[in-house]
Amino acid sequence: MKVSAPHPAGYSAPSPALGSSEIEAYLDEARDLVLDEIRLMVPRDQRGSGRLYDLMLDYPLRAAKALRPALCIASCRALGGRTETVLRSAAVLELYHNAFLIHDDVEDDSEKRRGADTLHRVHGVPIAVNVGDGMLALALQPLLDNMASIGMGNALRILKTVGEMSRATAEGQAMELAWIRAGRWDQRRRDYVRMVYKKSAWYSFVTPVTLGAICASAEDPPTRALRRFATLLGVAFQIQDDVLNFTGTEHQYGKEILGDLWEGKHTLILLHALQHCTPTEHCRAEGILQKPRGGESSVLPQGFAAVLESLVRVGDLTPAGRDALDAVWHGESRPPAKTVDDVAFLAALVERAGSIAFARSMARRRAERALQTLEHGSRFFRPSVHFDFMRGLARFVVERSW
Amino acid sequence: MKVSAPHPAGYSAPSPALGSSEIEAYLDEARDLVLDEIRLMVPRDQRGSGRLYDLMLDYPLRAAKALRPALCIASCRALGGRTETVLRSAAVLELYHNAFLIHDDVEDDSEKRRGADTLHRVHGVPIAVNVGDGMLALALQPLLDNMASIGMGNALRILKTVGEMSRATAEGQAMELAWIRAGRWDQRRRDYVRMVYKKSAWYSFVTPVTLGAICASAEDPPTRALRRFATLLGVAFQIQDDVLNFTGTEHQYGKEILGDLWEGKHTLILLHALQHCTPTEHCRAEGILQKPRGGESSVLPQGFAAVLESLVRVGDLTPAGRDALDAVWHGESRPPAKTVDDVAFLAALVERAGSIAFARSMARRRAERALQTLEHGSRFFRPSVHFDFMRGLARFVVERSW
Repeated sequence: MKVSAPHPAGYSAPSPALGSSEIEAYLDEARDLVLDEIRLMVPRDQRGSGRLYDLMLDYPLRAAKALRPALCIASCRALGGRTETVLRSAAVLELYHNAFLIHDDVEDDSEKRRGADTLHRVHGVPIAVNVGDGMLALALQPLLDNMASIGMGNALRILKTVGEMSRATAEGQAMELAWIRAGRWDQRRRDYVRMVYKKSAWYSFVTPVTLGAICASAEDPPTRALRRFATLLGVAFQIQDDVLNFTGTEHQYGKEILGDLWEGKHTLILLHALQHCTPTEHCRAEGILQKPRGGESSVLPQGFAAVLESLVRVGDLTPAGRDALDAVWHGESRPPAKTVDDVAFLAALVERAGSIAFARSMARRRAERALQTLEHGSRFFRPSVHFDFMRGLARFVVERSW
Repeated sequence: MKVSAPHPAGYSAPSPALGSSEIEAYLDEARDLVLDEIRLMVPRDQRGSGRLYDLMLDYPLRAAKALRPALCIASCRALGGRTETVLRSAAVLELYHNAFLIHDDVEDDSEKRRGADTLHRVHGVPIAVNVGDGMLALALQPLLDNMASIGMGNALRILKTVGEMSRATAEGQAMELAWIRAGRWDQRRRDYVRMVYKKSAWYSFVTPVTLGAICASAEDPPTRALRRFATLLGVAFQIQDDVLNFTGTEHQYGKEILGDLWEGKHTLILLHALQHCTPTEHCRAEGILQKPRGGESSVLPQGFAAVLESLVRVGDLTPAGRDALDAVWHGESRPPAKTVDDVAFLAALVERAGSIAFARSMARRRAERALQTLEHGSRFFRPSVHFDFMRGLARFVVERSW
């Protein structure tokens, strides 16, 4: 077992970064360790609370990558720390991540998560919001229990880091929600980078390596190197996520393909395309992006249209009357939803502007710089599978298909 | 200033419990102190995060009672502690309370809170969920800062207590949401008591007095007496809240009158009424309670009905055709919402069963026992305005009109 085995005596630098299949094996091991830990944190006794605790395990047990805990463990171990020391904090991160996902899915009204329906689509918004809150509540005690195993000082540093993480994530989320609310689509590249840094990179990359370093009782210089690595790679990861939303297959990717366009998300790709289209196209695109995504309400017009046709057939309604009702229904009576043509129009803008290639190259440049940061600081790290995992991850993040 | 003044030398037992106006003055003072503290916790710098931090202050700045922080301060001071010691924890409780309210209002789709529209009705569900998350994130740091002012041991005890509180609250909320989801209305009185104990009494009464006792470095016996007092009074408080939903005025109460019936909440009053009606009435009531509350969708039928009428007038639609379309709209096309008649039917069941009087007397009995608990343990407490506040609160909670 690579993740939790002691440092092999024979490991000596320089060794190659891990390749894809080794990365995946490392992730799988980390996932198993962390799931065991999460199962210890989530009570089995439901205490009459509906399925509160069952539902807390729903997202974690779906086919997740366990990237955050793996990165947390690898950072700790590459700095000489032990797996037992960091495992609880790594599991708490995964719990936070899944709580954030549940609330995110509510906020974006996403349909799919990890290849299945999102929690709120199955159980409703009220239960989903509460399950997320319950997971956040549950995460505090293990961080207090840390005192006994990693010492007071480090446990407090972790609590502080987790507090900052939650706050940064809410700020990043608030930035994006404010853009959506204002219907604004003129963000520059650096606005986008700042938003995803806060909303995603901070908790997905920067916090995991920071907690790993704290658990290894690391000094400032290696911690700084790790955080710089994580900042660069975290943004690259999110950009690649945006890319996969266009190029992936739903089976591998686990979310709805083109879902970002349907949801009207501020991705680097879409912002790039909007900067490279004509004013007329920009205007039409903004109109489309302001429309809701549709969803279940599309059930009604179909049934309704059928009724209208049957009334025309039996002579209770004239064709002119039908057209009038149709117009009321599609026009005034409720905000029109995005159509397949609308989304195809946006996709065509993206295609013509070469926005996917642009995003891909931006992700790769950042991943490359992340790798360099790590290599330059290699004297801080133990030659080990854990260091090689992090180096390999720099490439993996931008080459992955899920 | 009563709340923060040092213990007056001349105070000697037994003194009378505070009356209504004195209680309100004590609450007002506590509120001012705590709001100052909350303003220190919430950054002014928006960091491009939309109005995230502004919105965190929205609910706290509305006309709130500040009952929780006042109870927290009073417990600490009645046990000999100082206001400076407990103020930060009291403010954190108020922050948690307001975050819970925001998420609760989303989960219940409530319309009014403290005399104004709920946050999600004004800013949308995504922003409301995120503002609540941001407040919970913000609450962690002050509890860590506590270490410096109240010592490591007490600060850790508070963190643990707050973690347990969040968890109990999520469990209580989950119980109620599970009842709603299952469409079940056969809960017994003790199910109701258990639910409101977890969902509301725990964080509103039990946790405030516990934190107060911790900040006063109190021993076990007074802490146990306080917690018993808080458990009894917390449930009484929630029952009185249910009563006010029927008997209050919206101006004083700050929420929608009969809102609990419109939302279909599992109140003691409604459960009592359902246990005292005929099977036929029970069946009709369940049917009503399963309907959604209606709300904004009522905009559409009005405009739509007008169009139907005009089509009939010009001869494009026969009256039979209009009725058919009307039936589709009100019947099949979407779930019918509760009507005014529906809610009046439920209110009549409540009236006939004497459920309000039943609830009122149950609240009073518990408040009386809460007061006795406090009086029996009076040797633990300093004769002071703070002890008299808590004694007065026992009556105030069940006699208040807001």
